[in-house]
Amino acid sequence: MEIMSVPMETPEGANLIIGQTHFIKSVEDLYEAVISSVPGVRFGLAFNEASGPCLVRAESNDEGLRQAAIRNAQAIGSGHVFVVVVQNAFPINLLRAIREVPEVCSIFCATANPVEVIVTQGSQGRGVLGVIDGLSPKGVETASDVAARKEMLRNFGYKL
Amino acid sequence: MEIMSVPMETPEGANLIIGQTHFIKSVEDLYEAVISSVPGVRFGLAFNEASGPCLVRAESNDEGLRQAAIRNAQAIGSGHVFVVVVQNAFPINLLRAIREVPEVCSIFCATANPVEVIVTQGSQGRGVLGVIDGLSPKGVETASDVAARKEMLRNFGYKL
Amino acid sequence: MEIMSVPMETPEGANLIIGQTHFIKSVEDLYEAVISSVPGVRFGLAFNEASGPCLVRAESNDEGLRQAAIRNAQAIGSGHVFVVVVQNAFPINLLRAIREVPEVCSIFCATANPVEVIVTQGSQGRGVLGVIDGLSPKGVETASDVAARKEMLRNFGYKL
Amino acid sequence: MEIMSVPMETPEGANLIIGQTHFIKSVEDLYEAVISSVPGVRFGLAFNEASGPCLVRAESNDEGLRQAAIRNAQAIGSGHVFVVVVQNAFPINLLRAIREVPEVCSIFCATANPVEVIVTQGSQGRGVLGVIDGLSPKGVETASDVAARKEMLRNFGYKL
Amino acid sequence: MEIMSVPMETPEGANLIIGQTHFIKSVEDLYEAVISSVPGVRFGLAFNEASGPCLVRAESNDEGLRQAAIRNAQAIGSGHVFVVVVQNAFPINLLRAIREVPEVCSIFCATANPVEVIVTQGSQGRGVLGVIDGLSPKGVETASDVAARKEMLRNFGYKL
Amino acid sequence: MEIMSVPMETPEGANLIIGQTHFIKSVEDLYEAVISSVPGVRFGLAFNEASGPCLVRAESNDEGLRQAAIRNAQAIGSGHVFVVVVQNAFPINLLRAIREVPEVCSIFCATANPVEVIVTQGSQGRGVLGVIDGLSPKGVETASDVAARKEMLRNFGYKL
Repeated sequence: MEIMSVPMETPEGANLIIGQTHFIKSVEDLYEAVISSVPGVRFGLAFNEASGPCLVRAESNDEGLRQAAIRNAQAIGSGHVFVVVVQNAFPINLLRAIREVPEVCSIFCATANPVEVIVTQGSQGRGVLGVIDGLSPKGVETASDVAARKEMLRNFGYKL
Repeated sequence: MEIMSVPMETPEGANLIIGQTHFIKSVEDLYEAVISSVPGVRFGLAFNEASGPCLVRAESNDEGLRQAAIRNAQAIGSGHVFVVVVQNAFPINLLRAIREVPEVCSIFCATANPVEVIVTQGSQGRGVLGVIDGLSPKGVETASDVAARKEMLRNFGYKL
Repeated sequence: MEIMSVPMETPEGANLIIGQTHFIKSVEDLYEAVISSVPGVRFGLAFNEASGPCLVRAESNDEGLRQAAIRNAQAIGSGHVFVVVVQNAFPINLLRAIREVPEVCSIFCATANPVEVIVTQGSQGRGVLGVIDGLSPKGVETASDVAARKEMLRNFGYKL
Repeated sequence: MEIMSVPMETPEGANLIIGQTHFIKSVEDLYEAVISSVPGVRFGLAFNEASGPCLVRAESNDEGLRQAAIRNAQAIGSGHVFVVVVQNAFPINLLRAIREVPEVCSIFCATANPVEVIVTQGSQGRGVLGVIDGLSPKGVETASDVAARKEMLRNFGYKL
Repeated sequence: MEIMSVPMETPEGANLIIGQTHFIKSVEDLYEAVISSVPGVRFGLAFNEASGPCLVRAESNDEGLRQAAIRNAQAIGSGHVFVVVVQNAFPINLLRAIREVPEVCSIFCATANPVEVIVTQGSQGRGVLGVIDGLSPKGVETASDVAARKEMLRNFGYKL
Repeated sequence: MEIMSVPMETPEGANLIIGQTHFIKSVEDLYEAVISSVPGVRFGLAFNEASGPCLVRAESNDEGLRQAAIRNAQAIGSGHVFVVVVQNAFPINLLRAIREVPEVCSIFCATANPVEVIVTQGSQGRGVLGVIDGLSPKGVETASDVAARKEMLRNFGYKL
């Protein structure tokens, strides 16, 4: 079998969260999970229905992000995959809620990096094999890199 | 390396849940997770022991579903993979409990669709790369599809 | 695209936990998750930063295990992947805490077996597709294997 | 301040789950949590709105159980309390889902026993202090009681 | 023993979250849980150390809210209790993260209502028995109240 | 109604975890949760059965701690309450696992402090209203207390 790389489209300032779920109810459940996580969040999400009419199902509170989510889900083309495209919030704010959606099986990535989804094509459909999330490492942090890393997290206020 | 597609066997009316775990204790823990989730659930589950005797380990409250789980786990042939085959209950009823099994690493899919597991063969054994869960999307839902989707979930009683 | 197998290095008596996360904060959060799980745990962990300086980021309470985690993360070479190398504790003691790290997307494996990580190389970086965790199954357990399995878990005290 | 005991009404074959939550959205979220936990579950739930119109809010898929939940919530009379009355399912099937409702603060009890809720009355309203869930212990189990307990759980199929 | 009602101070536009935890590490862990939940959240939190120096321990990103949290924790005066005072975010955005703090035992309430904490005084210290969260119910919702409730949640965008 | 304070017995070097659960299966589930959390943990646990034979049910891997758990559970005398007495591990290592036991409703406290459980006696049995966990606060931390607190957590290795 062949494997192919499908580049995702990430709108300016957005993060993508891509995962595997199992039921059309996920569309509403993911919508609720995201919108109740952060006041003011803007997002679109899409889900590849994998039986019956086989439609890309989508919800959002932002039409542009909904269209971006749909384009990404279509490009992946794999059944039961979902894509969330989110602005004004970060994956760290949303992942707890998305993980608790009862239908969600796993999350392939959550990232603002350029991301490619690795898929394969079988006789009945496509499957996601993995993701290339940003760049490969170029080296190992030194003591001064460690200090800068810790300082950055504390400047953001994330750590004390 | 080559990648291969392994079709799963889904008994009539059953759903499959396939995942990665890490310890033989998973067999009993998954049994308990499933049986305490839904009164009347029927299921079989199998786990590929990945060291020592390397046996497919299995439990169930239904011998036919146990055999189906074993056949699926053997066909995958990848260490530390588990397969649950379930009737009289749906993944939405079971995934919370399966996710909380302390050894479970991830869930590849949960589905009633025809499913193929994508594997590769290395020198020591096999690895799961992904799944093809049902069919690829054929289009994007329209406003009337959205209305029908929402109505269906409300007719099932899942949403108000 | 090509896929390659990357063998992991598992120090004597150690377990590896490998997963996908999404933010440099994971380094401190994973450190805290592991160290607060088991008194006396010894561990190292590494994370592949996937943008900006693209450094392997690492923390530990054991320099040898930190170096092992770094070597494994570098060998994988895929962005936003983390590797935990742990002694004096088992994955069953740690997975709940690691799963609750807010940035963690998924866990590829948790194992003391020899493990190979299957990766592919794209134009921007690498992606993990799956793992080969130990050996493939050689047969199906018999009634006496079942009895021995149950007895073993009870001898360990894990089950009553 | 005085404390009072408020006896709950438990319909034939039902279990009660009583807890503290924080927002009117809980009514729909609890409905969804319960109905998606067990196929065929019958239930009613009620929530004491604690500001504005201060109404008992209720949902169900069974009018009799809805009325029982309302009567129990009114009898408690404490703001932000919820009561679930459930048949054809057991708390063990539902508690994971109820705990994950994002607004739920805590669960006072889950029981088929006769239950009294202990409340106090302040100037602005009532507060739940605790519950009397069934009877007090009359002795300590002996070795033969232990054996019978383990056998009972295995006869139910809950344990192997 | 006597029981007393301790009124909490809720700053304008704030919500209070009050719970039981077990270790001084909670102060930093709760800080991290809240700050990583919602971009732009403003909050203060306080914890009643219950041994050794027995100090109210506090963190925040807003000095006024820190002082309010301290005053509330002191007024309660019960060991191992914590109080979070939060603006620019709602409990629904924060409770998942607070529940996952490894030391947190339970959450008494999460509310923007006027709240009284019911405590008792023993020989060694104080204990929280419960809370009065807002007002008692005045009636049961009618069909038109139900319709208004559902519409309100949909106008907020919380439900579809 | 009267309220009474019941002092708990805490063996040397032990922590107590006290909570509300709902089913005799809790005894085995809590046993498994604790023993799989920390290698080398020593513990006893007891549960007040609240119907039928109404026995204190207990498991352990340490007879002395089992007896201490039983004495504490009997002293509380409230139905569906459990008590865990643990050595060689800390609540921070165990609470995630205990919270995930499917029957557990809530946790009243987790502490090495002297603890009193506040109960009331009704016509059918007893109910827990709250706990007095250690001492009341004597003051508010100063800047130097904050520095000492942070340094202590870092000396323990809990934080970086």
